[in-house]
Amino acid sequence: MYQLFYAPGACSMAVHIILEEVGAEFELFAVSVANRDTQREPYLSINPKGRVPALRIRGEAKVLTELPAILRYLASRYPEHALAQSADPLLEARITEWLAWLSGWLHSVGYGLIWRPERFDPDPSHAPALAAQGKRVVEAAYQDIERALADTRTWSVEERFSIVDPFLLVFYRWGSSIGFSMRDRYPAWTRHAQLTLQRPAVQRAMAREGIALPVEACAALSPHAALLPPPVAL
Amino acid sequence: MYQLFYAPGACSMAVHIILEEVGAEFELFAVSVANRDTQREPYLSINPKGRVPALRIRGEAKVLTELPAILRYLASRYPEHALAQSADPLLEARITEWLAWLSGWLHSVGYGLIWRPERFDPDPSHAPALAAQGKRVVEAAYQDIERALADTRTWSVEERFSIVDPFLLVFYRWGSSIGFSMRDRYPAWTRHAQLTLQRPAVQRAMAREGIALPVEACAALSPHAALLPPPVAL
Ligand SMILES: N[C@@H](CCC(=O)N[C@@H](CS)C(=O)NCC(=O)O)C(=O)O
Ligand SMILES: N[C@@H](CCC(=O)N[C@@H](CS)C(=O)NCC(=O)O)C(=O)O
Repeated sequence: MYQLFYAPGACSMAVHIILEEVGAEFELFAVSVANRDTQREPYLSINPKGRVPALRIRGEAKVLTELPAILRYLASRYPEHALAQSADPLLEARITEWLAWLSGWLHSVGYGLIWRPERFDPDPSHAPALAAQGKRVVEAAYQDIERALADTRTWSVEERFSIVDPFLLVFYRWGSSIGFSMRDRYPAWTRHAQLTLQRPAVQRAMAREGIALPVEACAALSPHAALLPPPVAL
Repeated sequence: MYQLFYAPGACSMAVHIILEEVGAEFELFAVSVANRDTQREPYLSINPKGRVPALRIRGEAKVLTELPAILRYLASRYPEHALAQSADPLLEARITEWLAWLSGWLHSVGYGLIWRPERFDPDPSHAPALAAQGKRVVEAAYQDIERALADTRTWSVEERFSIVDPFLLVFYRWGSSIGFSMRDRYPAWTRHAQLTLQRPAVQRAMAREGIALPVEACAALSPHAALLPPPVAL
């Protein structure tokens, strides 16, 4: 039915989680971002943008790209899970607003500067300045996320799990991996990550990607945690 | 009903056009991007992100931000215009895919590097390298846009005007303003811009923003063009 091109722990994990949440039939194809297989054939013939996630849909010649588009597509294919739907168009718009900002600013600019400085300035001697600025962008955005999650009682948009929440989990892990001590700095977000990690679909997707939980979020985990590989340093 | 915070000719023009298309009641508030009024009070209290567009909606404490979210919200408020709706969820996803890429890559990274280099690297001596790279990003993206528009007979997504099309017009103008000779290089996109400019709603929004048409697109214009200020160099 669907084929997902992903890299373990990459933003594509949010799509993988949603495929599990809705119970879709899908196959996974791993593409290494670290080895830059995303930037080479055969992957460029599949997705000329050279990025994951990309979703192949039966009967469609072109893969669907862009995380916000794939997430919303899956939500609308499986409306019974109400992962992006609401009777209130404004709530739907708040979901789109989150995704646009997380994807077009925090990810594209913040993490882009840290992990792909050459996209912004090909001079390798400028890479440290770019990475430092990327960290400032990420830090400011993380404060905004913490504040927003402290305002909601459970999930990012009202009281219901949505396509935004697994994407936030991806950024929670990335924060640890760039050295932020997430539990100390972001208590509301840590509670959100723990809640997210309690969902069986999240656990299945992470286990299949071989991704350990962020150590600091493990404490509060349900017995399902046994499904997961033991936590390792990120 | 709605209040739109915009800057003349900025990406917010796409929202302004859609407000006109659907016949919404709205007020406009200009915020100068050029003078950096977006980065100061009182605007930061309205939109702490310091960007336009922002849409104030009656009864909502927080403005709605992020162009893809505002466009989609308006489309869903006025479904009779079918500006983002389709019986086929995949077509809707293609609209989201366009918006995510235009906003999160071409605009955020490409034009960001050219117009706001300090967001990427605060060292002013690196600004020319960043701007040069921004131009390369824009150029590659413009080739992709040209190719995509050459594949469709009229609009960007199938045969119907959607919320993607006015955003493409914004980029068409910006291309001229950074010195690309749009008509020579991008014939399919020029045809698309001409079609877009024939819409009365587009003409009203541009006239109200005091924005002249890109000179190269004027030739094919309908008599409605008389509504517009005379074309000036961009
Ligand atoms: N705008 C894209 C960005 C996706 C993206 O950049 N993904 C990263 C992994 S998290 C990637 O594929 N990087 C590959 C590379 O830089 O070569 C989206 O939202 O899907
Ligand atoms: N992600 C935002 C970006 C909006 C944006 O950057 N807008 C520009 C104008 S085209 C802006 O407000 N710039 C103000 C500044 O840089 O101070 C969106 O999609 O709405």
